[in-house]
Amino acid sequence: MADLFWPGDERAGAHFTAEDFVGAMLTVEEDWLGQGLGLLVDAERLALDAEAGGNPVIPLVRLVREHAPEAHRGLTSQDVVDSALMRMSEAAVGSLLADLRSLIRRLADLAAAHRDTPMVARTLTQHAVPTTFGFRVAAWLTAVLDAEAQVDDLDFPDQLGGAAGTRAAMAELGVEVPAGVPRWHTTRASVTRLGDALVGCTDACARIANDVVTMSRPEIGELSEGTGGGSSTMPGKANPVLSVLVRRAALTTPQLAATLHLAAAQQVDDRADGAWHAEWATLRDLVRRTLTAASQTVDLVSGLVVHADRMAATLAAAGDTVLAEQRSMAAAAGHEPAASYLGDAVAYVDAVVAHARELVEEER
Amino acid sequence: MADLFWPGDERAGAHFTAEDFVGAMLTVEEDWLGQGLGLLVDAERLALDAEAGGNPVIPLVRLVREHAPEAHRGLTSQDVVDSALMRMSEAAVGSLLADLRSLIRRLADLAAAHRDTPMVARTLTQHAVPTTFGFRVAAWLTAVLDAEAQVDDLDFPDQLGGAAGTRAAMAELGVEVPAGVPRWHTTRASVTRLGDALVGCTDACARIANDVVTMSRPEIGELSEGTGGGSSTMPGKANPVLSVLVRRAALTTPQLAATLHLAAAQQVDDRADGAWHAEWATLRDLVRRTLTAASQTVDLVSGLVVHADRMAATLAAAGDTVLAEQRSMAAAAGHEPAASYLGDAVAYVDAVVAHARELVEEER
Amino acid sequence: MADLFWPGDERAGAHFTAEDFVGAMLTVEEDWLGQGLGLLVDAERLALDAEAGGNPVIPLVRLVREHAPEAHRGLTSQDVVDSALMRMSEAAVGSLLADLRSLIRRLADLAAAHRDTPMVARTLTQHAVPTTFGFRVAAWLTAVLDAEAQVDDLDFPDQLGGAAGTRAAMAELGVEVPAGVPRWHTTRASVTRLGDALVGCTDACARIANDVVTMSRPEIGELSEGTGGGSSTMPGKANPVLSVLVRRAALTTPQLAATLHLAAAQQVDDRADGAWHAEWATLRDLVRRTLTAASQTVDLVSGLVVHADRMAATLAAAGDTVLAEQRSMAAAAGHEPAASYLGDAVAYVDAVVAHARELVEEER
Amino acid sequence: MADLFWPGDERAGAHFTAEDFVGAMLTVEEDWLGQGLGLLVDAERLALDAEAGGNPVIPLVRLVREHAPEAHRGLTSQDVVDSALMRMSEAAVGSLLADLRSLIRRLADLAAAHRDTPMVARTLTQHAVPTTFGFRVAAWLTAVLDAEAQVDDLDFPDQLGGAAGTRAAMAELGVEVPAGVPRWHTTRASVTRLGDALVGCTDACARIANDVVTMSRPEIGELSEGTGGGSSTMPGKANPVLSVLVRRAALTTPQLAATLHLAAAQQVDDRADGAWHAEWATLRDLVRRTLTAASQTVDLVSGLVVHADRMAATLAAAGDTVLAEQRSMAAAAGHEPAASYLGDAVAYVDAVVAHARELVEEER
Repeated sequence: MADLFWPGDERAGAHFTAEDFVGAMLTVEEDWLGQGLGLLVDAERLALDAEAGGNPVIPLVRLVREHAPEAHRGLTSQDVVDSALMRMSEAAVGSLLADLRSLIRRLADLAAAHRDTPMVARTLTQHAVPTTFGFRVAAWLTAVLDAEAQVDDLDFPDQLGGAAGTRAAMAELGVEVPAGVPRWHTTRASVTRLGDALVGCTDACARIANDVVTMSRPEIGELSEGTGGGSSTMPGKANPVLSVLVRRAALTTPQLAATLHLAAAQQVDDRADGAWHAEWATLRDLVRRTLTAASQTVDLVSGLVVHADRMAATLAAAGDTVLAEQRSMAAAAGHEPAASYLGDAVAYVDAVVAHARELVEEER
Repeated sequence: MADLFWPGDERAGAHFTAEDFVGAMLTVEEDWLGQGLGLLVDAERLALDAEAGGNPVIPLVRLVREHAPEAHRGLTSQDVVDSALMRMSEAAVGSLLADLRSLIRRLADLAAAHRDTPMVARTLTQHAVPTTFGFRVAAWLTAVLDAEAQVDDLDFPDQLGGAAGTRAAMAELGVEVPAGVPRWHTTRASVTRLGDALVGCTDACARIANDVVTMSRPEIGELSEGTGGGSSTMPGKANPVLSVLVRRAALTTPQLAATLHLAAAQQVDDRADGAWHAEWATLRDLVRRTLTAASQTVDLVSGLVVHADRMAATLAAAGDTVLAEQRSMAAAAGHEPAASYLGDAVAYVDAVVAHARELVEEER
Repeated sequence: MADLFWPGDERAGAHFTAEDFVGAMLTVEEDWLGQGLGLLVDAERLALDAEAGGNPVIPLVRLVREHAPEAHRGLTSQDVVDSALMRMSEAAVGSLLADLRSLIRRLADLAAAHRDTPMVARTLTQHAVPTTFGFRVAAWLTAVLDAEAQVDDLDFPDQLGGAAGTRAAMAELGVEVPAGVPRWHTTRASVTRLGDALVGCTDACARIANDVVTMSRPEIGELSEGTGGGSSTMPGKANPVLSVLVRRAALTTPQLAATLHLAAAQQVDDRADGAWHAEWATLRDLVRRTLTAASQTVDLVSGLVVHADRMAATLAAAGDTVLAEQRSMAAAAGHEPAASYLGDAVAYVDAVVAHARELVEEER
Repeated sequence: MADLFWPGDERAGAHFTAEDFVGAMLTVEEDWLGQGLGLLVDAERLALDAEAGGNPVIPLVRLVREHAPEAHRGLTSQDVVDSALMRMSEAAVGSLLADLRSLIRRLADLAAAHRDTPMVARTLTQHAVPTTFGFRVAAWLTAVLDAEAQVDDLDFPDQLGGAAGTRAAMAELGVEVPAGVPRWHTTRASVTRLGDALVGCTDACARIANDVVTMSRPEIGELSEGTGGGSSTMPGKANPVLSVLVRRAALTTPQLAATLHLAAAQQVDDRADGAWHAEWATLRDLVRRTLTAASQTVDLVSGLVVHADRMAATLAAAGDTVLAEQRSMAAAAGHEPAASYLGDAVAYVDAVVAHARELVEEER
């Protein structure tokens, strides 16, 4: 699967495709039935049949019952859709965590390699004080570590409530419900926390990409994407395409997560009248865009070319400007300016790198 | 095309599918070249090849130039994508306007039929004063008329700027540029106005659907969807599925239009570094969801069953409560309450219906 | 403080007012200086002086240094603003947790009191199967418990980085930095997680309010707000005002949290060029609206009038309809329908109530 | 009025303050009554009293009737609030248009002055082809012209419907309703179009500010804000503060306009149960932020310093790179590259400037 309107979408693989959704729903039904069904379902056909009842489970149950008349007994559509969404999400988050950890490893290496590479710090676009490129990468890494922690903390509960959450049909049938499975048909924190955590990931990836597009401007020239993209008309032009595509994602995902919250806030009765239905495609897009952005960021960091000479030259050219604070502080403290003005930048890089490496080792 | 995550999506037909996008881009290239190309392009292949340069035009131009080496000369990727988006939008808006006008016609008929059907007005969920169902439908109609006017006012300019908007390549080639074609590579009002107008449509459709889900609650029972959707477990249940699906759309579209504005506000240089790329899929989803919602609303209104008896019974049961204001006003005016307390509701219905019919007659 | 545009805003008290902001910034400066300043600052004056440098710290430091010339040495504006925002947030979240726990206590009592009160369940607005009102309240309670857990999990770190995060001025001055204080000048998870958790609260409050507005419709009449609001023209009308105002908040907060994520995703360099500045008012509004909504929901639940007779009557009137599933299940299971069709609803209420009570006892 | 959380807010003057709201509501009541009331209303007191009924009109009417017992007769709260919002909006938009036209004038002058100032065009952050700074300013100007046109097209209708839109009380009282006043109590296009148009303005202002922050980076140095803002710790630093604050606004306004659409899409019955109430503060913030951003952009452009020497130097340094397209086109056309490669940039500047000047002349 690829999406002409979202270049790079194929990086998200089969996660949250129509086939993935069908497969996840079938697995939910099979688990409930206690037996495999071996069904081949035409996802396109199912999609066309889904509108009449408002969700894809109703036509799916018709198909399933041709093979196993007792299937779905005790469940309701929402049990199947919600559990399927969570199972797909769990698998997708597994892929995402792998990418985030790969990113963490690469960022740790990059930060370590450049812990002492001098560079000018910039605040509000202007030269500020000296820093190191490793310190900047440590900030990127911190952002990704924050995002990883939030994603790693998620859980993906099945939903088992029956028609209105009371599990009445299950009781009538004398079916035992697996212990520990919650019901959350109208309380959607599992969905909103997932959405928020995914946006945390695109926030972190964009934080890196923003620096890359800035620092790869020709006038700055301190970074470049290893494999810049070309132009349809200008020979030789090399654009920071991966960064651009990552930034694209991060402009869209916050609003998708907001939609999940709006849907949570519209819950009513024992099944919502529209808010539930708004979640499915929204979550799909949010998941696939986050997977794509994370994968692109791994490539971006892997291929990143660091022009330490340009960093040094810019810092040298900035000269006195970036030492104004130091002079003012030294005067206040009543001594000559120290030889370096890097504070604890290098120690900080070491600490963040050590923490990151410990984490990815643990997670292996 | 159908979307398992968005039941009813097939109502949007071929608009803004990958094939539609390929076709529109090819037409832009052909128009520029001044000749047909007769190319068959594999949209999936093109999508896979689009990431390297960040947009689908670069691989498309490679294909096109195998047949016509002089193709695309003078254009840039953005000329092709933007013009293609606008051409697809114009076609989609054509379909949308047809649906909106169909909806206007049906609503005008429904309002006229029920101009005198007594009903209780409700404000903040509570019984207020008497009204007529036709008056309520006139409000629905007003919302749709507002939406239609905004959509009808849109235009869909091609984009012709070349590499950086200056049309330098065109000048160098001695190519004449079609008169009146603007350049808007970094000024995106054409996109944001389109997005805003589309949201105006889902706002108006949802305004109808909200009343239908409310008034088809069994305790109210004043309306029902002609063909309610069933349940996967509860025999005989009839859900207001079309209304639910329309409401779903309207929960998602405002955030999509906000994304288009955010992208417009992130324009920089002579081509944006991510904001442009965020528009394509966002506009696609916004267009298809609006088309789907409008089509579903036409069906919803066409099949709507009005239970005038329940309306009358509720009003009768409300009794004195809904005449409290009238008594207070009559006392203030120093006369007995008039026989009816409908104000100019019926005249208003007539006026809105007449205006609506005039409009759809004109537009034929 | 009260806000004519946001009735009820005064419930948020002094949290995130201009005075609170000034006070928090002063405390940050005082803690850094190691002594009290005893300054009276005119917040309005400071606000007027804030634009020139883009933030309120620059004029504040001018004032502070009139009293203590060595104040602020080693800090940067962002250290002060970010730490102040977090300290204000911590205090506000303290108030919020108190309200949430009060709400949890009341909901637990309400659920327990109505664990067996029969009611009809509604899905997609239509009658579904029997349930109890206590079961519905248990769903409300679950939503609030989820929200409380997320809020309780937050932390509120100070920010100490100096001009560009490297703490160079602190080193130059030989100032010891308090252990364990992080730097997050361009990695904003502390802000976005706070924002997301606050939206989780309005989601949960709205989930309650939605049911109240629905169930207090006169045709349903199963609930009413104890103290309904009046009308400016209709004598005797009683509107579910608290619910309406809670629903209002929940329509706005998801977009505010999205703004915080967009700001996080626009971080660049060592201080962002606009994204940082967008956080302050956004967070203020998000905090105050959440506090107001939580307080209103406490009152809403405290004053809620439950019309168990209407619940029973509706269920009785629904009659066979809501037993269709039971008949189908009993037939499938080959036995007569059981006397009741409530599944494990009552046991579920007991479990949720017990969990809630344990939690609020612990938190005391 | 100034806002410590939103530096520069005082630029919005008295528009949409509490006092403005009170004043506008009083004027609506006075116009309806046909006489002045000469009332002094304590806005803070009114705000505190507004929660009980959910809106400020109920306590206001109590005050008003102490002076004129027959006041408000025939109106409902929503008539007063909606009309007041529109009247405040009309006044605010008047100020906004003045700023936009001032901006248009300055941009026209700037574009004209630099129609021939050579500069390198940048696409996706990389050097593309030659352009002129005047051409870039023409793009800014186009964005502002688009925004101005949309704002200028707005209208600001009063709302007159009475309790449920039917004007029953007016009829009962025998009161004549001013001709041509619409009712839009549940159809909110007047609000959403206003919101969308305001966002169009911040989009256009940010489009300028984005270029300024980019081009005032020291490595580029082609522009600088005349009066840069300082730092709380780094002597001599000059930040592009106005641009930063304008960018800030544009990150927040799209989500506010989305909230207005969500509110429009939640309209139900004859008065919405929360969606109406969500509009007031949202519109207030949207209006004030847009006014502030427009005013800041006027100052930004007025004080902008253009470093034509740096532009020329960058272009010269880019050398052959930016002529690669020209060489390829010239080769295709079979001739030597022309002396210049600016296409119709200069003619375009002239045309946009002429159009802009004509417009602002007309509007005087």
